[in-house]
Formats: sequence, C-alpha cells, structure tokens
Amino acid sequence: MIGRLNHVAIAVPDLEAASAQYRDTLGATVGAPQDEPDHGVTVVFIELPNTKIELLYPLGEDSPIKGFLDKNPSGGIHHVCYEVDDILAARDKLKENGARVLGSGEPKIGAHGKPVLFLHPKDFNGTLVELEQV
Amino acid sequence: MIGRLNHVAIAVPDLEAASAQYRDTLGATVGAPQDEPDHGVTVVFIELPNTKIELLYPLGEDSPIKGFLDKNPSGGIHHVCYEVDDILAARDKLKENGARVLGSGEPKIGAHGKPVLFLHPKDFNGTLVELEQV
Repeated sequence: MIGRLNHVAIAVPDLEAASAQYRDTLGATVGAPQDEPDHGVTVVFIELPNTKIELLYPLGEDSPIKGFLDKNPSGGIHHVCYEVDDILAARDKLKENGARVLGSGEPKIGAHGKPVLFLHPKDFNGTLVELEQV
Repeated sequence: MIGRLNHVAIAVPDLEAASAQYRDTLGATVGAPQDEPDHGVTVVFIELPNTKIELLYPLGEDSPIKGFLDKNPSGGIHHVCYEVDDILAARDKLKENGARVLGSGEPKIGAHGKPVLFLHPKDFNGTLVELEQV
C-alpha cells in the first residue's frame, strides 16, 4: 500500500536559522518559506536527491505545531509522510485494521496541493504518519 | 554536502508487532531482524521505493534505545540518516561550524557496514542526525 517516503517533517523554533543551517552548513537545496494557513504552518522544503525534508514553523494562534514546540523547545522530528495511490482505499483498509484517522477522517489538501490524512501516533509506534495521495 | 536520505529510524517497543504492521497493514517490504551488538540495537529494515525505514529495538543492557523507550513507551522517530561522500571532511566542516559529534568523534561501522557518526540533536533542531559515508 505505502509507496515512496514523500518527506520527513521537522518542527523548528527558528525557521530562518534552520533553513540557513541546511543550506550553508549541510549544503542542501533549500526552498522559500510557504504559508499554509489551512494547516497552521509555514513550511520550507529541503530537496534531497531522493526525498524531501519539510521544516515546519507555527502559523497563527491555533497551529498544531505550537504544542509540539512547547514540549520540544529545540524542535524535533514531527512526522513522516508516505505516498499512496488511493487515499480513501488506504484509509478504509487502515480503519478496518483498527488504526485511527485524525480530525474529521476526510482528506484535506496538503502543502503539495494533494489530498492528505494523518494517522494517530499511538497506533503507529509513537510516530505521526501522514498519507499523501500522489 | 549531504546527499540522499539513507533512512529514518523509528524506535519501537515490540519489533515483531511493528514489523507485522508495516508488512501486513501498510503493505511494505520488511526484512529480517539483524542484531547490531556494537550499536546495542536489533534492526529491521523496511524497503520503500526511494529510501528505508529502520525499526530499532534495544539489544543488551546498555542499549542507547532503552532510555528513549523509557521516555517514549509507544516508540517514536529516533533519528534521520543522511549520506555523505567523505565522512571525515563532513565531520571537520560541521565541527568548524560549532556542531558537536557524539561519542569519541571517530566514525564507527554502522548497520550497513559503512562508517557512521551521530551529531548532537541540540545543534540540529532537536533532531538526532546520523551521517553515513556511502
């Protein structure tokens, strides 16, 4: 069911400093910040040869990243995103297997303009898993 | 400097259950458990089309994963591993930029039989970063 690892998301307390570190110290290709108001985050994508790192920074008062950064002031790895061909079929199969889908259970449009869902970390070894239909 | 994302490591409290979930529920290609006594872990690699997930489980009394699982009993994302061409050149450049290398500062041989180093999470947005020379 799952295909490529689309990205690893890292929540950061200072988006500019983290972008500069990946660009200047780690020598990676770093994009421009993009506001994603529907998800309450500003994101910066780092293009690696085989996948992406997504730096996440809170946007707005109700950002889902805010609580994470309160608990992890230095930042931390926030989620992994796996690609699927059919997000509704994937969701239904996962629910049959007892996995919980976060939020309304219906896909939202993610940072790449494609449908995404998040799965409950407690059902996946403490790992927040995003599924993205490609 | 950094190249491909070699793997994302997830520490898990039950290696057999996590392997079965990735194989049966998520439909991924899951390898056999490998003991890595030099690193204090048993690992299972999950082959995705573009990278790998490394499931980590403690091996022995001094496993570096044990404390992580005490703090995160459900498990959690433990580190990311970036590939580099020359691990000593990468280390020296990172140290010049103020990053701290864990342990002795000298590369060890990792789960793939190649030299690896770990960088201090506090210097990388709360993210434990492994470098692997490929």
